[in-house]
This record gives sequence, C-alpha cells and structure tokens, in this order.
Amino acid sequence: MSTERPLRLALFGSGRIGQVHARNMAAHPGIELALIADPFIDGARRLAEATGARAVQDPEEVFAEPGLDGVIIGSPTPTHVDLISRSAARGLAVLCEKPIDLDINTVLACREQIRGYTVPIMLGFNRRFDPSFAEVRSRVEAGEIGRLEQVTIISRDPAPAPRDYIASSGGIFRDMTIHDLDMARFFVPDIVEVSAVGSNVFSDEIKELDDFDSVTVTLRGSGGELITITNSRHCAFGYDQRLEAFGATGMLSAGNVTPTTVRKSGAEGTEESAPYLPFFLERYAQAYMAELDAFAHSIRTGAPCSPSFEDGVAALVLANAAAESALTGKTVSVAGANA
Amino acid sequence: MSTERPLRLALFGSGRIGQVHARNMAAHPGIELALIADPFIDGARRLAEATGARAVQDPEEVFAEPGLDGVIIGSPTPTHVDLISRSAARGLAVLCEKPIDLDINTVLACREQIRGYTVPIMLGFNRRFDPSFAEVRSRVEAGEIGRLEQVTIISRDPAPAPRDYIASSGGIFRDMTIHDLDMARFFVPDIVEVSAVGSNVFSDEIKELDDFDSVTVTLRGSGGELITITNSRHCAFGYDQRLEAFGATGMLSAGNVTPTTVRKSGAEGTEESAPYLPFFLERYAQAYMAELDAFAHSIRTGAPCSPSFEDGVAALVLANAAAESALTGKTVSVAGANA
Amino acid sequence: MSTERPLRLALFGSGRIGQVHARNMAAHPGIELALIADPFIDGARRLAEATGARAVQDPEEVFAEPGLDGVIIGSPTPTHVDLISRSAARGLAVLCEKPIDLDINTVLACREQIRGYTVPIMLGFNRRFDPSFAEVRSRVEAGEIGRLEQVTIISRDPAPAPRDYIASSGGIFRDMTIHDLDMARFFVPDIVEVSAVGSNVFSDEIKELDDFDSVTVTLRGSGGELITITNSRHCAFGYDQRLEAFGATGMLSAGNVTPTTVRKSGAEGTEESAPYLPFFLERYAQAYMAELDAFAHSIRTGAPCSPSFEDGVAALVLANAAAESALTGKTVSVAGANA
Amino acid sequence: MSTERPLRLALFGSGRIGQVHARNMAAHPGIELALIADPFIDGARRLAEATGARAVQDPEEVFAEPGLDGVIIGSPTPTHVDLISRSAARGLAVLCEKPIDLDINTVLACREQIRGYTVPIMLGFNRRFDPSFAEVRSRVEAGEIGRLEQVTIISRDPAPAPRDYIASSGGIFRDMTIHDLDMARFFVPDIVEVSAVGSNVFSDEIKELDDFDSVTVTLRGSGGELITITNSRHCAFGYDQRLEAFGATGMLSAGNVTPTTVRKSGAEGTEESAPYLPFFLERYAQAYMAELDAFAHSIRTGAPCSPSFEDGVAALVLANAAAESALTGKTVSVAGANA
Repeated sequence: MSTERPLRLALFGSGRIGQVHARNMAAHPGIELALIADPFIDGARRLAEATGARAVQDPEEVFAEPGLDGVIIGSPTPTHVDLISRSAARGLAVLCEKPIDLDINTVLACREQIRGYTVPIMLGFNRRFDPSFAEVRSRVEAGEIGRLEQVTIISRDPAPAPRDYIASSGGIFRDMTIHDLDMARFFVPDIVEVSAVGSNVFSDEIKELDDFDSVTVTLRGSGGELITITNSRHCAFGYDQRLEAFGATGMLSAGNVTPTTVRKSGAEGTEESAPYLPFFLERYAQAYMAELDAFAHSIRTGAPCSPSFEDGVAALVLANAAAESALTGKTVSVAGANA
Repeated sequence: MSTERPLRLALFGSGRIGQVHARNMAAHPGIELALIADPFIDGARRLAEATGARAVQDPEEVFAEPGLDGVIIGSPTPTHVDLISRSAARGLAVLCEKPIDLDINTVLACREQIRGYTVPIMLGFNRRFDPSFAEVRSRVEAGEIGRLEQVTIISRDPAPAPRDYIASSGGIFRDMTIHDLDMARFFVPDIVEVSAVGSNVFSDEIKELDDFDSVTVTLRGSGGELITITNSRHCAFGYDQRLEAFGATGMLSAGNVTPTTVRKSGAEGTEESAPYLPFFLERYAQAYMAELDAFAHSIRTGAPCSPSFEDGVAALVLANAAAESALTGKTVSVAGANA
Repeated sequence: MSTERPLRLALFGSGRIGQVHARNMAAHPGIELALIADPFIDGARRLAEATGARAVQDPEEVFAEPGLDGVIIGSPTPTHVDLISRSAARGLAVLCEKPIDLDINTVLACREQIRGYTVPIMLGFNRRFDPSFAEVRSRVEAGEIGRLEQVTIISRDPAPAPRDYIASSGGIFRDMTIHDLDMARFFVPDIVEVSAVGSNVFSDEIKELDDFDSVTVTLRGSGGELITITNSRHCAFGYDQRLEAFGATGMLSAGNVTPTTVRKSGAEGTEESAPYLPFFLERYAQAYMAELDAFAHSIRTGAPCSPSFEDGVAALVLANAAAESALTGKTVSVAGANA
Repeated sequence: MSTERPLRLALFGSGRIGQVHARNMAAHPGIELALIADPFIDGARRLAEATGARAVQDPEEVFAEPGLDGVIIGSPTPTHVDLISRSAARGLAVLCEKPIDLDINTVLACREQIRGYTVPIMLGFNRRFDPSFAEVRSRVEAGEIGRLEQVTIISRDPAPAPRDYIASSGGIFRDMTIHDLDMARFFVPDIVEVSAVGSNVFSDEIKELDDFDSVTVTLRGSGGELITITNSRHCAFGYDQRLEAFGATGMLSAGNVTPTTVRKSGAEGTEESAPYLPFFLERYAQAYMAELDAFAHSIRTGAPCSPSFEDGVAALVLANAAAESALTGKTVSVAGANA
C-alpha cells in the first residue's frame, strides 16, 4: 500500500461524529483528509487545524476541489440525501452516517437519483465493524453453530439524549433501534415480519414528546429465524451492547467491554469488573477505524459496500414497521421490502 | 422442628416428576411419605419400596387414609382438577404440578369448586424456588436495582419431547412457555398485554403437529415493564435457563449452572466450562426441595402459598393469550385477567 | 444396594466436624450411625438425638458394641493414634480426620502397630473429594493437558482460628498447609524437595505464638513438576480455595464457589458475584458426602483407601519439611520419604 | 501540546522491538523519529522508509545530529551500557530496553559513569504500563484492598525462544523472570529475600544449555509481603500473563486478554473464549505506547522516570539472587540491595 498515493477525502460536518471520522482519517496511513466543510466554520476550522485539513463553509467548495476520491457525510440528517446525490453525481464515493433520512419517501427519491451511479455508497452502521460482533457473524457464516435460529440483541444507551435531540430524532425506532435493526439484518438479511412493543417507564420528558423510552422488537426472517431486540434509553452501568446468535449446534455471544481485565473481590462481593465502556465513542472506537478501512477498500477495489445504501433503506423500512406495530399492536409484514 | 410430628403426605403419580417428589419427601426430616397412588401399580410399588411408603392403586384409598395432611399431585394433567377438588374437599393441602389443566374453562370450574376451602393449594412452578432466580427476585424486591423496567428470560429445552408428548401437550405456550410466563409474573404480577411470535426452524415433526418449535413472547406489565421470553425446544449445549432483571439503577442476572467450577484452556480455546446441567431434574434439584419446604411451611403455618392456584390460572390465561397472539399477529390485552 | 444391609458405624467426637459426619451418616441410605462417643456426653447426646444414634461416653463402649463395621474419628488430634490402633485391632474400618498426629514419631509408631491389619484405614483429607478438584485431577490423569508440569494452589482461610486453637495446632504448616500438601500429592504423589517461606503480615497474636500468618511453599516432584502453595490465615472475601493444573498441552483450573450464579451490574461496577461460600463446612459439604461414600465403598469392597494412612504420613513429612525450610532458609530434601 | 514542537528522538536497533518503538514514535503526535541507527543498515533503511526517519549505520551519526532530545535503545544487550553512557554524556534522554546488561559489574560501572547526569534514563520494563497491571497497582496504592500482603504473578511465554537466543540470554532468571521481578518491585519496591526453584520438565535443548525451562520464585518484602512468581518457557494456550494482589481487605486481579469478547457454547463445552493474545507484541501493544508517552513526559517535564535506571539495577540483583538460590537451595538475602 505504501506505493499507492493516499486517497483524498473530504468530510461534511465537524460535530461529534465528524470529529471521530476526521481523527481516524488523519491517523490513517492510506488516507489524506483534504477538506472539512461545515456552515459553522469555527468548528470546521478547529478540527481542520488539529487534523491538517482545510476548512470550508460551503459544500460547493468540496465539489469544486480537484482530485478528491470521496466524502464522508457526518452533517445533520436533513442534509444527507442532498449531499449523497450531489457527491455521487460528481463521482465521489460516499460514506454517509445513518440514517439516510427520516422520511422513507425522501430516501426512495434519493435512491432514484443515484440509480446508475457506480461509485461506492456506504452507510455508517458502525456496529457491523465491531470486532466482537463481526467475529460472531463470520463464525456463524462459517457454520460454527449450524443453521442460525435465534438472535438476541440487547442495546441500551447510558442516558437519554437531550430533549431537543429526541424531539427531532424521528422517534426511538428510527433513531436508536435502527442500529439494532441493521445488526439483525447483518445476521438475517431477509426479514419478513416486524412486531414491536413500546413503553414509558422512566422519562416523563420522552413521554411528553410522544416517544417511548423502552422498546422491544421481534423480527422474523424468511427462514423462520426469530430476532429479538431490547432497547432502553438509559442504563445505570454504562453502554449495554450485547448479542447472542443461537443455532442448531451451539451459540456464539458477544459481551460488553471493560477498559481493563481487572476484577475486585472484597467483603461485599467478588469478581467485580469496572463499569463498561461508557458510550459509542469508546465502545466502537475500533469499529469506526475498521469502517474507514472498509470504505477505503471499496474505493480502491470497487468491491461492493457493506452496509450499502440499500441496507440503509431496509433498516428504515424496518424502523417504520416497528413504529407502526408499536402503535397498532399488530405484526407488520415487510416481506419483499428488503434483502 | 424436631419436636413436631412429621407431616403425613400422599403422592399421586409415580412417573418422572412423582419420583422427584417421592425421594425429596423421603429425605425430608419433617415429612412422612405415607402413600403413593398410581393406577399403574407396578411403578407405585417400586417407588414406594425405595422410599418407605405404601403403594395404592385407587385415589380413593388416599382419601380414606386417616391422618393425612396433604397431597402432591404428580399424575397426568387430565387428572389434576379432579384430584385438586377432591383433596381440598377433604381438607388436604395440595401441591399440584403445572398446569392445572389445558382448558381454561375446566380450570375456572375447578376454581369455583374449591372456592371457600381454606387449605393451602400450591402450584408446582418449581423455578420460583431456584436459588438464583429467587435471589434475583428478592434483591429486586429489596430495591437493589431501583424500579424494575425490563426482564429478559431465555429458556431452552435440551431436546424436544417425544411426538406423543408434544401432541397432547397443549402446544408450546401452554406446555413450555407457561413456566416462563409464571417467572415473568414472579417479577411483574400484573401483566396487561401479550404479544407472541412462533416459528418452525428445526423440527418437521413439531410442524406437522401444528405446533411451534421456537417462540418469543413480549409481555407488558401494568407499570409499563417489558418482559421478553425466548424459547426453543432444543439447545445443543444443555438446558439453557437464564434471566436478567434490569432496573433504573442496575441489573441482576442469573446464569446457567455447571456441575463444577472447572475451566479448561488449550490451544483451540480458553476458559471453557463443561456443558450446563442437562435438564430440569438436575438444574432444579434444589428448587424442588425448596418447593417442598415451602409447601410444608404453608401447611404448618397457614401462610399463603406462592405460587398459588390463582398463579396457575393467571399463567394459563397468559399462555392462551400468547397462543392467540402468535396466531393472529395481534397484541392481546389481558388487563384484569391476572394479578 | 437396596438389598444390602446398611453398614453400622460409630463416631468418635461430637464437635464441629463430628456433627458434619453424623448428619451425613444419618442421611446416607447405606449407613446406620449406631453410636456417638464423646467424653463430653452432653454434646454426644444432643447429636445422637438429632441423628437417631446412641450416645456413649467411653470409647470402650464402642469397641464392645457387636456388629459394627467401622468408625469415624472426629475427636481431638491427641486421641487419633490410640483410636486408630484400637479400632483396627478390632477389625473396624477407620476414617480418621487429619492429622494422624502432630508428632511424626507418634505417627510412625502407630504405623508399626497397625502393620498387618487389613481393614481400610482412610485419612480425612476431604478436599480430594471436592467435585471441582476431583474433576481436574481425573482429567489430568486422562491426559487432557498432556504431561503435568506445574500446579498452583491458593488456599486462604476466612479468618484466623482462636488463639487457643492456634497455640495447640502444631503451627500453620501442620495445621493448615497440610491440606494443600495432600492436594499437591493428589496430583504429584512423589515429592522430592520442599522450600517454604513464612511471614507475619497481619496478626500480632499469631506472631506472639511463634507461628506464621502467611506462607508460601514450593514443592518439586520427582518428574520435575513444580507445585506452589500460597496460604493466608485470613481472607476478606471468604474461603479462597483455588487450583490450577498446568500441563504441556493446556491448563485445567478450579475456582471458588458462590451460593448462586447471580451477578450484579450497577454504576460502581459490573458482573459482581456474591462473596464465596464462607468456610469449609459450606464449600466442602459435597466433599464430605463423597468422602463418606468412598469410605463405605472401601468397607464393602475392600478397595484400597484414598487418601490412605500412608498419605497421612506423607503429608506430615512434607509439613515438617516445610516448617524446617521456613526456619532455616534451605530447601529440604524429602526424596524417598513419600510416594 | 499542539503548540509545542515535537520531541526529536533517535532509535538504536531495527529488530523486532526496535520496530515496535519506531512505529509508535511515527504515530505519536508529539514525537518526531529523526534517525534509526543499526550496523545492519538494510534493516534500518526499511524501517526508516516506513516511518519517515533517516537510517544511519554508525551510532556516532546519532551523537553528531543536532537538535535531538533523546534516544531509545533497542539494540542487542551488549551494546546497552555503552550507548546509555554516551547518550547521557551528550545530554540525551534515554529509554533503554531491559536488561541494562547481564553482568552486574558492568551495570554498576555504568551507574558510576552516568552519576551526575541529570537527563531522564528510563528502563523498558513495559509491563508497568499494561493498563490492567497499572490499574491494579494504582488501586492498591489508593488503599482499595488495605495493606498489601501477597502478590501472585503467573507469567508463561507461548514457546521457547530459539536455541541461540537462549544460549546468550543469561538464563531464564535474567532473561524472562526479570520482567516479573520488576513487576514484583512495582508493587513492593523493597525486597529483602529471594528463594527460587528451577526445573526442566519439557525441553531437552534448554537442559543441555544448563538452563531451566520452568521456575518459581518467592520474594519477601521488608514489610513481610510474600510475592510468588511462576514461569514457564512454554504455554499451549498463548501468552499467560496474570497477576493477583491480595490485601487485608480484598483482592485485585488482572487476567489474560482475548482479542474479542466472543464466547462459544456447544455440545462439548460452554463459554469458551478464543486463545489469548499470542505474545508480547500483541498483549503489550498499549503498554509500549503508554511507555513512550511516559518517556516523552519525563523529557518535557523533568519528572523522575519510572522504571528508572536504578529499577533496572534492582531487577538484575534479584535475578542474580534467584539464580543463586535455585543453584544452592538457599534463600538469598538482598536486604539493602534495592529500593
């Protein structure tokens, strides 16, 4: 690789997730972060200074830049489809944070617009790149537990996002569960039915926003596989991110991550670990780097992206179905809508 | 206790579960197993010989026996309601194996018949007495994890029962899930909604019997609590019986049980435990003894039974609701039907 | 077994360990506890009442009893050799608590006296019967980790015994470490060298008694195997009893035991277990029952005892060598003195 | 830090450990790797190309380079003292791989030569920077387990080094155990006595070289603390690096590290982890980076180094004492020789 020229990339958005991508690109030996675009130019400037990039305010400056290979879109959700379309139209590879958009019609319109473009368009479902989840999946694929029958996903955030974030998030299914729905499809791409139950057990604020603070979702795959997702918007002991894949001949599980292997035993209890890594920046630090590697690999080789734009569409379809099921109390068929 | 005379009990049924109860009674310092009744008199005789009891063929001989304090009903399900009613009518305390009956109308008729009798009538939901599950529940009750929000129950049998058993079992919800439904109510007595999904992923035989081999159930409690149950009729690594109680300030979990603490590390893998205890006779051996203790305690003190006849009714109501939900794809309201 | 008459046994000593044996014998289907002998007749009476035995004051009454098969010696250490010799002389099988005696000359004299008697004489090194330790050993014997190279034994009491007990205990090596020395010989019977280091880190009382509160011992087997023992007279988190067997192709370990599988996660820490089982009565409850089974088996079949009288001699030889090594700072050769 | 100019460092040695340091320096935002010196200039060139440094053959070129802040010495052991002395004399900070030298007299002579120089001189005992070991130590220092009483260190290499390496290694105590001796001093700096036992259980090659393949060492601290070290030159399940600190009120332990949290359960066994990280490059990858950070911090702030040159001396004194003890079978006093 040392003989290849580095890929030249631009970044949209200098917020929390933009910073993750910017620092990873700056540290990546095969990538040059050329531009960071953000209407809030101060943030872009600070980040550009720390990563050796150039800050710009207007996306047009990105599209006018010669010699770019691709973009990473980490700007607010409402900007996604426009930036995807315009980038793809200019032959720039795209890695876009989830979700594509909160409105499925907007997403489907975007799909039409980019039809025919051949550049890699990748969705930022970072958890597919978590080393533990990825290992479970590859060992399932390798047949280590026989035919896959059930998947249990537990996913709890450490604490609710601020009220404003929640209010514009599209609701827990489209904002939070969507990651787990993609994880379900990572194991069972062809989902045919969605049942969901939502509840309000701890947050009056979330209730006032007509959103749930706790949900469970059951998915059925076309092969009869049953996947259950359990979500909560809070968790006293950290970021709870676990998964079990149960098959005909065994089970593979991926647990939470502690910063070290230290355990303590004392008069009150034994073998106590430290709290789990606090949130996604820590837990999925390796995943973000592996995601960037995969994006670079797709650009260089033209290999199909995973997760793809279509995976982003499918996850939103499932999230919408879950929201509908939680509202109506009825199982929603999504046969044919994904996979 | 040594100064009290032992309780004199009789046992209906000398099959697998009858043998468990007979041996536990024989070993219990405060209990005398007087009679074992079974139409298959040979089985009753063998068991009676091993436990120092007397074998009889006709239940009437039990009811004619003077000085009995109570009975344990371990005979086939269709005999339960009749034996409960007749025993209670004679002032005998009852510990009856689950389910009371597969037909809710029969169960409700039985409830009418025993109305007014004051003897303890206890249902054999043995898992409430598992030391780990019982500890989780008592620590939840003690407020150790704050308000209870979510319960995750995973329960898988090692292998499907024989075809004949399945055919007359009343279906997976009434036969297998019913234990987990009672466990759910052990934590959240007042369940208001039931959603279930069933699937056939590995057994053609079970499919031919119009039953599911794998199911998931989501329950909602009156306080918004969400309980998920995951069942499979088979499990390659033993009897999978786990539970997590998630609350506002923490989580308590109970795991599977291995025969010893031995772990092995070698070139292929590390920290490998032995397979889990194979099935309920081994996993719940302590639970059956604790259940017997609790039954004896209720007889001696008149303390209310837990689980009670009403708990048996409630579990069946939930099992029926789950079966209906799996069939219709609709959430079933059971508000007011239990707790 | 149900057709055999029960073995008739007598018990010497109604103290803490005597009570363990008495209750186990009372509960054992193949054993009848006939007599309990103790000069402190009140204790014997209470225990006899609880177990259906007869209390006697004078050992002679045991030896005069017709139809006895054997005795269990749980009386104070100074009575052991006399009771062993007299029991063996009368054709009674013996299960004697450790140690045979604190004085090796007394032990060797006893060995001479019982030479030629063919009744089973078994030493009460109960840990050989712990299910976890026994499993590690049998899997080592089966070759599961190749040639055995190293054994790591960690053994800590929850709290020091009372001053009077310590004062007459023979010192930590002969009183406490002796169990671990036997455990070492359970894995590597032929020990050739002993090195020990003693220290006083927490108890002024033990120091005043010229004893150590903490010691480590390294043993070398005739095949070059290295065994390390780490002891402390106290442990804040319960009875710490662990073992690792390391071989050419892997490692088998046995860990501490908790009452249940419950683990707690909260804001301060995760996956915390309850404190370990508090002391030997709880941790080795199963071991004492298995030991009794093995004793009964030896009586019935004439099979050689393990641990045998010779194992008791060997452990004392090692304990003496460890005490000498800790005093002199020199490795002590014990080649030929055991195995 | 972004406003400070990077530290300019040079590296001696482009072998395995040199490559670790070179890549870490290249990735470190506050360090510029200026020169790599190695008589085998091809290796230096390849590594320099990959890390943006300049390769030189003669150490003099390093000493002639203007504007250097320090050096990392990763060249063969016999070159260490010369390079330390010459670097320190030129005012260059030094991070030198262990050991300083295999000959204590050479080490002491070097100590005389550098007396009076004030530049940081740090020893490369990388394990002090392992996140788990460092956390245990800091929590012990914080008093979390009360007074420290016992430390158990288990340290096994995956496989023996090649014959040539072993032959010139100075023996297992000076080559391998020396890391564990420093770890012991990390917890208990003032060691007063050393007892060691060596054995040959698996390698005829090592035996022919008059070296041991397996050893145990017991250290006593001036406060009576007992530290045990168990070493083996091979380990079937990976690089076995564990530590337990036992104190008056509890225990802190650090376990082995697996690449992910994945565990597998199947018919043959349950909860099996992957093999541990294979060797020091993987297990101590984070430690090497933290070590480099600490070195940079000392250079910038003048803060005392840990581990220091004196720690290097002390570890060698202990290794020599262990070798002597294993040979003579006598405990060796080292009171006053360290701490």
